[in-house]
Amino acid sequence: MKTIDLNCDLGEGFGAWEMGNDAAMIELATSVNIACGFHAGDADIMRRTVELAKARGVSIGAHPGYRDLHGFGRRPMVGLKSSEIENLVAYQIGALQAIATAAGHKVTHVKAHGALSNVACEDDMTAKAIASAIKAVDPNLVFVVLANSKLVQAGESANLPMVQEVFADRAYEDDGSLVSRRKPGAVLHDAREIANRVVRMVQDGAVVSVTGKVIRMRTDTVCIHGDTPGAVDIARGVRQALKNAGIEVAPFKKAS
Amino acid sequence: MKTIDLNCDLGEGFGAWEMGNDAAMIELATSVNIACGFHAGDADIMRRTVELAKARGVSIGAHPGYRDLHGFGRRPMVGLKSSEIENLVAYQIGALQAIATAAGHKVTHVKAHGALSNVACEDDMTAKAIASAIKAVDPNLVFVVLANSKLVQAGESANLPMVQEVFADRAYEDDGSLVSRRKPGAVLHDAREIANRVVRMVQDGAVVSVTGKVIRMRTDTVCIHGDTPGAVDIARGVRQALKNAGIEVAPFKKAS
Amino acid sequence: MKTIDLNCDLGEGFGAWEMGNDAAMIELATSVNIACGFHAGDADIMRRTVELAKARGVSIGAHPGYRDLHGFGRRPMVGLKSSEIENLVAYQIGALQAIATAAGHKVTHVKAHGALSNVACEDDMTAKAIASAIKAVDPNLVFVVLANSKLVQAGESANLPMVQEVFADRAYEDDGSLVSRRKPGAVLHDAREIANRVVRMVQDGAVVSVTGKVIRMRTDTVCIHGDTPGAVDIARGVRQALKNAGIEVAPFKKAS
Amino acid sequence: MKTIDLNCDLGEGFGAWEMGNDAAMIELATSVNIACGFHAGDADIMRRTVELAKARGVSIGAHPGYRDLHGFGRRPMVGLKSSEIENLVAYQIGALQAIATAAGHKVTHVKAHGALSNVACEDDMTAKAIASAIKAVDPNLVFVVLANSKLVQAGESANLPMVQEVFADRAYEDDGSLVSRRKPGAVLHDAREIANRVVRMVQDGAVVSVTGKVIRMRTDTVCIHGDTPGAVDIARGVRQALKNAGIEVAPFKKAS
Repeated sequence: MKTIDLNCDLGEGFGAWEMGNDAAMIELATSVNIACGFHAGDADIMRRTVELAKARGVSIGAHPGYRDLHGFGRRPMVGLKSSEIENLVAYQIGALQAIATAAGHKVTHVKAHGALSNVACEDDMTAKAIASAIKAVDPNLVFVVLANSKLVQAGESANLPMVQEVFADRAYEDDGSLVSRRKPGAVLHDAREIANRVVRMVQDGAVVSVTGKVIRMRTDTVCIHGDTPGAVDIARGVRQALKNAGIEVAPFKKAS
Repeated sequence: MKTIDLNCDLGEGFGAWEMGNDAAMIELATSVNIACGFHAGDADIMRRTVELAKARGVSIGAHPGYRDLHGFGRRPMVGLKSSEIENLVAYQIGALQAIATAAGHKVTHVKAHGALSNVACEDDMTAKAIASAIKAVDPNLVFVVLANSKLVQAGESANLPMVQEVFADRAYEDDGSLVSRRKPGAVLHDAREIANRVVRMVQDGAVVSVTGKVIRMRTDTVCIHGDTPGAVDIARGVRQALKNAGIEVAPFKKAS
Repeated sequence: MKTIDLNCDLGEGFGAWEMGNDAAMIELATSVNIACGFHAGDADIMRRTVELAKARGVSIGAHPGYRDLHGFGRRPMVGLKSSEIENLVAYQIGALQAIATAAGHKVTHVKAHGALSNVACEDDMTAKAIASAIKAVDPNLVFVVLANSKLVQAGESANLPMVQEVFADRAYEDDGSLVSRRKPGAVLHDAREIANRVVRMVQDGAVVSVTGKVIRMRTDTVCIHGDTPGAVDIARGVRQALKNAGIEVAPFKKAS
Repeated sequence: MKTIDLNCDLGEGFGAWEMGNDAAMIELATSVNIACGFHAGDADIMRRTVELAKARGVSIGAHPGYRDLHGFGRRPMVGLKSSEIENLVAYQIGALQAIATAAGHKVTHVKAHGALSNVACEDDMTAKAIASAIKAVDPNLVFVVLANSKLVQAGESANLPMVQEVFADRAYEDDGSLVSRRKPGAVLHDAREIANRVVRMVQDGAVVSVTGKVIRMRTDTVCIHGDTPGAVDIARGVRQALKNAGIEVAPFKKAS
């Protein structure tokens, strides 16, 4: 029986502000990526999110981003040195590890957020700095990387356990990269189409590009979003479609 | 032969801003307390400070403060709940632990900064929340506490290893508390007087109050400041006076 | 015909985060207090809120708070000097003035936010510092103050035009102060009761305390909240009840 | 008699942190650019700096930067929309205007800081957004722009009064642009060479490029730096050399 992990970004509020529907998404995801205070999240939200995940038996990962609360970590930050990226990633992982320890849970993976991830997908230096930080903090942490990106090579070079991720609701170019959000059709909204697409990704290990080309793609985890209208329904549809297709939804296993 | 630890706050710059003379003070201290990004410090400064301490064989501790860069953590923050204090302390310890791990060093103690420490010295809830956070993250971390403060009981209740601290350059009231900085004479400036005072603290386990009363006080570590004019010379004087008195300067041992 | 102003805090999101229902509340208020970036709000949200107010013919005021995004300006900040309060209030007023000028609108009043206001209601120094900042920036700005608080005297001393505010949904003590939020019954939730209460405040210039005592209270503006569930319905109820009672809802006039 | 303005960035500390030697530089400059809280500076430092300038009869300008305290506004921020740049510039100008009004002084110019200026020098959209913000807040504010940059056209299009700036201590390419700081020789350190260079700039309206080419360049103001070792001595040398050459040092006049 095939299994697949569904991962979701959680804990992206800050202070009095909330973002997304964490209570609903935690029921649908099998692993969650928790904001660590740089682009979103704070120590209290991290604690609550870790406790929520623990109570639901969901595995947790650090979701480090650029230091950019105002821009929600979505603005590329130019001119950071490799060491600066390493340090900010290490800092954020450690912060979540301590919160998790205090709550009796354990951080098992790391997935970069927003612009930090986007930049790293195309920039060797950034990708390697992230991998290097993870390895230096704990080489057993699983590196969650976008399939077909520079992050894959960075993780391989660092010899980190890795799982590769595809997006449920994003269109792909022929070369396996994501269609830019600036182009029309970059984000899918039809719940049924998204659900069918995910089933096919898992069953075939492939995704169909915008031109109809079948692209082989390792699929260890599927990213589901929680911060857009309709997100919860889309995620429910994905989960139901996977069940109907006889695919088990379960946290990813470590893989190299 | 008696030994004493000299502790100093380090890494209190932020981004492009510097504070104090870390390079000079690291030569004089045997343990350092590293700012963790909330009142001062950032991931890069933390990394450099950890590396500096490692190179000098100096033990390191987390120096958590309130979330208050603008006020340098010196403004009491009213209305924080116990859980909020626990979480912000745990977060900061973890951040430094990861940076230390990445640099091949290890966090061995925790000492609260500024207003967080001042409030905790008189407020049970705050003192217990700090102790609770340390215990939850790692019960082997040494809790550095001001002698004769609520922090002592909080550390005892949590069964944490503790070392008690006196200030080289601060005047004491008859009840063993620090003279408020708002009163004249609260801070000593004469290098020779300070040095003699420290020697007596270590030799006699006692400090002379502003009225001349001898107050018994456990003295495991002496806090030396690095961010005031003359600070480096004062610290050098203390170190020399201890040497002349046949007292060894060395990192504290764990003590319960 | 009696008239009354309904004021509401607006623009309290930050970056990607939203707070309250500004679009609904702008329809119900006749003056709005706009967060200026210290406890909430940013330059873009300020601009959008000013444009919204301009389009609706609603007058705007600066809503300065402590520098405390994480605590939403609700934590008292201890130890700020008078000059520090003056400067942070002046800064925030100026920031909104420039945004308003750029958008073709004009700042006509100032109302302190959250803990800054709460502290000032009981602390002369803080109240005077706020009044002093307003006067120094523009003595024609109307100072919106809580009736029966230290803010009233501070405004009088500074000779600022003032309007006095009551809360639609808060219980009052016999001495005219607000019942602390820590006590049960401090906040009213019944829409009909709130609406009747507001009508009586306006008609009689009085509010009934928790013990049933009638307290005379000048009522120039009524504060309606927008950031709680049911807030919009409560505000609609207030507005309808005022209409039924033949009271016109309109922006306050300057008063000394 | 020729006259020239010497401008200097001031007030670039934050909270407890200091930067540069404001007390010395204010004696040497005839106009100062005051950080407005986004990359450096805060309401208290702004106030002190305005008062310092007022006492010395030095004219003041807003020195807006990206929202980036940690990077001191030196990191290009990618993806900001034109409206976002307008709003952050307007916000910062207004904040300083109010502080200046409260202190009895007046903001007369605006000069962009660090990466915001560097990006604008080459990017039409950013340059126009800055000019547009200035115009919208107060079309009489003088726009201080780097000679030979996109800022010049942006200021002309907005019909703003402008003064053009050259750098005392920076090398120039043949096309009149600054040699990138990443190249050797980008920054000059020899006080005598810098002083001679400035005199020639003012006398001839020209600067000699790294290849020896004479580039005609309008020179209304010369930027002197205050935050590097030797900065004060260099500035003194410039001032003395100008005096020796019979050139008066005085605040710039408005020019279109």
